[in-house]
Amino acid sequence: MAGNSYGTLFKLTTFGESHGAAIGGVLDGCPSGLLLDIPAIQAELDRRKPGQSAIVTQRKEPDTVEFLSGIFEGKTTGTPIGFAIRNTNQKSNDYSHIKDSYRPSHADYVYDQKYGFRDYRGGGRSSARETASRVVAGAIAKQFLKEIKISAYVSQVGELKLNKTYQEMDLSLAETNPVRCPDPEMAARMEEYIKEVRKEGDTIGGIISCVAQNVPIGLGEPVFDKLHAELGKAMLSINAVKGFEYGSGFDGIRMKGSLHNDQFNQDGTTKTNYSGGIQGGISNGMDIYFNVAFKPVATIIQPYETIDKAGNTIQTQGKGRHDPCVVPRAVPIVEAMTALVLADFTLLNRTIKL
Amino acid sequence: MAGNSYGTLFKLTTFGESHGAAIGGVLDGCPSGLLLDIPAIQAELDRRKPGQSAIVTQRKEPDTVEFLSGIFEGKTTGTPIGFAIRNTNQKSNDYSHIKDSYRPSHADYVYDQKYGFRDYRGGGRSSARETASRVVAGAIAKQFLKEIKISAYVSQVGELKLNKTYQEMDLSLAETNPVRCPDPEMAARMEEYIKEVRKEGDTIGGIISCVAQNVPIGLGEPVFDKLHAELGKAMLSINAVKGFEYGSGFDGIRMKGSLHNDQFNQDGTTKTNYSGGIQGGISNGMDIYFNVAFKPVATIIQPYETIDKAGNTIQTQGKGRHDPCVVPRAVPIVEAMTALVLADFTLLNRTIKL
Amino acid sequence: MAGNSYGTLFKLTTFGESHGAAIGGVLDGCPSGLLLDIPAIQAELDRRKPGQSAIVTQRKEPDTVEFLSGIFEGKTTGTPIGFAIRNTNQKSNDYSHIKDSYRPSHADYVYDQKYGFRDYRGGGRSSARETASRVVAGAIAKQFLKEIKISAYVSQVGELKLNKTYQEMDLSLAETNPVRCPDPEMAARMEEYIKEVRKEGDTIGGIISCVAQNVPIGLGEPVFDKLHAELGKAMLSINAVKGFEYGSGFDGIRMKGSLHNDQFNQDGTTKTNYSGGIQGGISNGMDIYFNVAFKPVATIIQPYETIDKAGNTIQTQGKGRHDPCVVPRAVPIVEAMTALVLADFTLLNRTIKL
Amino acid sequence: MAGNSYGTLFKLTTFGESHGAAIGGVLDGCPSGLLLDIPAIQAELDRRKPGQSAIVTQRKEPDTVEFLSGIFEGKTTGTPIGFAIRNTNQKSNDYSHIKDSYRPSHADYVYDQKYGFRDYRGGGRSSARETASRVVAGAIAKQFLKEIKISAYVSQVGELKLNKTYQEMDLSLAETNPVRCPDPEMAARMEEYIKEVRKEGDTIGGIISCVAQNVPIGLGEPVFDKLHAELGKAMLSINAVKGFEYGSGFDGIRMKGSLHNDQFNQDGTTKTNYSGGIQGGISNGMDIYFNVAFKPVATIIQPYETIDKAGNTIQTQGKGRHDPCVVPRAVPIVEAMTALVLADFTLLNRTIKL
Repeated sequence: MAGNSYGTLFKLTTFGESHGAAIGGVLDGCPSGLLLDIPAIQAELDRRKPGQSAIVTQRKEPDTVEFLSGIFEGKTTGTPIGFAIRNTNQKSNDYSHIKDSYRPSHADYVYDQKYGFRDYRGGGRSSARETASRVVAGAIAKQFLKEIKISAYVSQVGELKLNKTYQEMDLSLAETNPVRCPDPEMAARMEEYIKEVRKEGDTIGGIISCVAQNVPIGLGEPVFDKLHAELGKAMLSINAVKGFEYGSGFDGIRMKGSLHNDQFNQDGTTKTNYSGGIQGGISNGMDIYFNVAFKPVATIIQPYETIDKAGNTIQTQGKGRHDPCVVPRAVPIVEAMTALVLADFTLLNRTIKL
Repeated sequence: MAGNSYGTLFKLTTFGESHGAAIGGVLDGCPSGLLLDIPAIQAELDRRKPGQSAIVTQRKEPDTVEFLSGIFEGKTTGTPIGFAIRNTNQKSNDYSHIKDSYRPSHADYVYDQKYGFRDYRGGGRSSARETASRVVAGAIAKQFLKEIKISAYVSQVGELKLNKTYQEMDLSLAETNPVRCPDPEMAARMEEYIKEVRKEGDTIGGIISCVAQNVPIGLGEPVFDKLHAELGKAMLSINAVKGFEYGSGFDGIRMKGSLHNDQFNQDGTTKTNYSGGIQGGISNGMDIYFNVAFKPVATIIQPYETIDKAGNTIQTQGKGRHDPCVVPRAVPIVEAMTALVLADFTLLNRTIKL
Repeated sequence: MAGNSYGTLFKLTTFGESHGAAIGGVLDGCPSGLLLDIPAIQAELDRRKPGQSAIVTQRKEPDTVEFLSGIFEGKTTGTPIGFAIRNTNQKSNDYSHIKDSYRPSHADYVYDQKYGFRDYRGGGRSSARETASRVVAGAIAKQFLKEIKISAYVSQVGELKLNKTYQEMDLSLAETNPVRCPDPEMAARMEEYIKEVRKEGDTIGGIISCVAQNVPIGLGEPVFDKLHAELGKAMLSINAVKGFEYGSGFDGIRMKGSLHNDQFNQDGTTKTNYSGGIQGGISNGMDIYFNVAFKPVATIIQPYETIDKAGNTIQTQGKGRHDPCVVPRAVPIVEAMTALVLADFTLLNRTIKL
Repeated sequence: MAGNSYGTLFKLTTFGESHGAAIGGVLDGCPSGLLLDIPAIQAELDRRKPGQSAIVTQRKEPDTVEFLSGIFEGKTTGTPIGFAIRNTNQKSNDYSHIKDSYRPSHADYVYDQKYGFRDYRGGGRSSARETASRVVAGAIAKQFLKEIKISAYVSQVGELKLNKTYQEMDLSLAETNPVRCPDPEMAARMEEYIKEVRKEGDTIGGIISCVAQNVPIGLGEPVFDKLHAELGKAMLSINAVKGFEYGSGFDGIRMKGSLHNDQFNQDGTTKTNYSGGIQGGISNGMDIYFNVAFKPVATIIQPYETIDKAGNTIQTQGKGRHDPCVVPRAVPIVEAMTALVLADFTLLNRTIKL
């Protein structure tokens, strides 16, 4: 099973290479009768699109989604929603330098080894451009989950770490700056830093934090399909992600159980939320929050040494348009994947009780 | 799809509650003709079993696996391998105190909410006892993957952090002490610390690190079923896990791309391995390594306040046999899940090329 | 994906060989809160068991099911239901004659070719004994679907064909005779005929008809998982089945559309039911009815010529206990598979609308 | 799981309504390195397209497939193959008469009941137009299976039944006449008859027979995913299909086992082939052959009585362009689905042995 589908009941299958005719997907299992706000879907795509600010790749691509099926008179019909985004600004000649060589820490080498050859243009299928299709489907999932509020934001860039909890900030401020950090002062510092990194032709990593609020109790299917296990897989499937933690996460290991346990209030809510809104793999109604670690993008605009297909060492130079730091544009992707996970578990949870 | 199956081609389905008649599973898709070393499977179970040392739960249960099908004349036949482990030492009366109340940070509350009621004895299905079935299947997967060496070990307990890379240690030493830390000195300190925590009736978290060596190039199915995404899901599906990172992980976000990129040697290996053996979701032949964060076990032997089913606040007291720190016994579980992931991707990878 | 699972949400995985330690299965996804009537499950097994009458195999096996998990205080908990049926009467020496040779029209040859070797005792995994596990799960499905009435019966044995529609008979009479034909006179003729065939050491084929009544409108998931397509697959997966037709079936091809179309009544029911209760792959609330063709059992008690593993022609003689006609014992299997299909679609149908 | 995907490893997902923007699909799991003959794919589509002869619907639609991804330098890359066929000749006003009423024996009523509303234009998703996407994917599957020869043909139209076995005819002659019957004389009679039926504004059913030759031994995954069970499901998922039988099929029930058993030759082939090339659910290397029954198309061009959404009886009149007999155009669909099944099992079979 080539791994291009996600979800069991609310299921997305994506297709498309960075420089092929189009990317797109099929969303199967979206319940019928959902009145879609198409401009809102396009708006999510616009949050992800290249060229939106000075700190992201300058590739200019409108990324306009066309829906091909599954919608009638503005509403989902319960049949598969096919959609496509044409690739309109493929500068394929930008990539001729990688046709016969392998860029370090990219997928070039392993694709050639696994599949025998590869569409090398712009990274082909391994390009993060594929995630635009996820954003389309995630935007539909958000509309399906209209009671649930999903908010992702940048909480770290390099060493610049936001030392505030999500409760201490107005998360809507994230959309007011190009970094997508809800703390304006930190956002400005991060932006400055990313510009510096960019000038060096280098890249830097970061963290995206995400919060899902108003999640009903009961989502998640133990034992293997625990809610946080699927969230983890969904996040780790995004390009450049190296780690995932939820609730107390890696810091929680230092705590003792007597402190870490979340005491109950009488209504079933808890006084603390080290559990991150999930217990035993099932949502408990408290806020779900988690962190996603992104490595520094592998494409750098510097001279570097690498090998060609024949195993010869070669000198080369990064070219093309790239992101000095991936996290600002990855915020809508993290939200989209969160929405897909929650939509799928929402449907699954309808089938559990008599 | 109630989530009790793992894997696409090498597929495990588990069943069983902590205090029911038996736990067990069905492993479907294990290739035919594999000569099984049954004592080696039992030996893996023994690594996980309760009562094996002074720092783990004193529940005494032999955990003997019985194979019911799928093996003939010592070899797998290609048909499903059914197996069961009888529950022989269920002290159900130990759990009468939780019948009508909810333990903090356990799954009691959410199971009742999701399913309408629950088998409360010993945590029922949410008990980590379920993982014994994973160890059985993982042990078979290990034998199938005989070229690949999977080594997990404890690298942190509370604040006690092992500051050595896996290359700096003899990992086989992990099995020489009850903590399963390959550094004997640190192991002794960890053991001491866990005993202290135990005396307090408290618990503490920890980290298990895992290394998979000799993994062939090409495992992993982008875009959703990236190798590290499945490893992440598999680890996060283990009881008490709160986080997963691979390669440079959360630390990698502080690095610049020019440093983080793994430069190639002429044979396709890399000079560094920040990628953790996986690029673009596909194994590149280098060592795969990752960390798994475990929270402090929720069961503590102290008085505490909680609520009952009716929402009344009650005073209660942790009883029963429990683990002060889960990581020593979770080492074989991490290895088992790693083996299941790699076995599944090994089979999937047979179907990719013409 | 070795094919030992059936269903998407209401999912059965079976294991076990005819002469291994046990057969059994795991039923995952059965909704929680279902009060199980365990004797009714055993009663279904008894309808399938060998030795129940003079016209079926005389193998004597009690076929007692033991439930291992998923049931607490008499009710399903929503966790997987594990169960096993011990094999107690395996006369393995009966089968030494087939160890190194291949019986015509059995699975011996293809199993050896596909898997490299086989558990030859009693046909191993290819034995119809596996269907006992389906009957257990199907009996649970029936209890879940309590509004739906599923009635299968024998409608043809060799040339003896029942020329009455299901509406013309009292289907409950099927259980009053060993053939399971609801027409007593025809049942007597069929019984007589099967005894004759048995005396010859020969076997004969037959047809089982099945009716599902009170099926709600809306079951079935076009385009690939049409209700009748899944019913067809489910039936064809039963040992010895060679054909499936529903509604007007093969006879309908001779009709013109103007006659074949089912005219509506004002309440949405139809005046005729050539559609067999399914239109466009979705149940329309009318009775679902279909026929399942079974070949003559391959095991005959006569001398015959065949080949051994080395390709030598050998003379041999059928031995062991066998069924001269499989349809009487297959009636509960057809009902069980029908129930599994309908239970799965019932759960799927909960997820379709907003 | 809305049922718009077929296959486990070689997996097709289709989308699209009869009168939406486009139909199409994603084929995931096609092995990399397959040099595609694109004109051959279009040629298969042309075999299915409307307007190709006087005995099929006169809707004129070029049905040109555009590939969007997964192909590079003429070869499959192992990434998903996205494709679309634009709907160019939708005369939506032809269907205004069915907007608020239900055509007998169509899916109109059940779609409204299941999904709450429907895209009524041309039958929307329930239109057989969807099968064009299957033909595209099936054509790729055929190229992947290049050793296997799949030949479908019309063997019955109404009462006109071809009384020759497939061995007695030159199957390639099927493509020389509009009925797609390999017996020229019978083809002429069938064509004449279909024209008569058409003049009456009526429709008639038929049978398509299919043969797959040079199938390797070992395809099929018992116990649930037997080769013939999947073939049956695949065929029954095609619009208008009411029955499936393979090998001796429904006629085999009249035979005794002593006659029906296929005796072996020394090389493992069999002297007869009542088994239809499949034993125990696994291909045995002999020809696979089966029959598929199609009902008379429900769309007739005659006045008829039916009900509207409010349950009122109304008089109406069939309009639009339709097929008087579906089997001539369904021949390439049967072949396509056969190819998809065999391609999937071919990949699955690579994972069975050590």
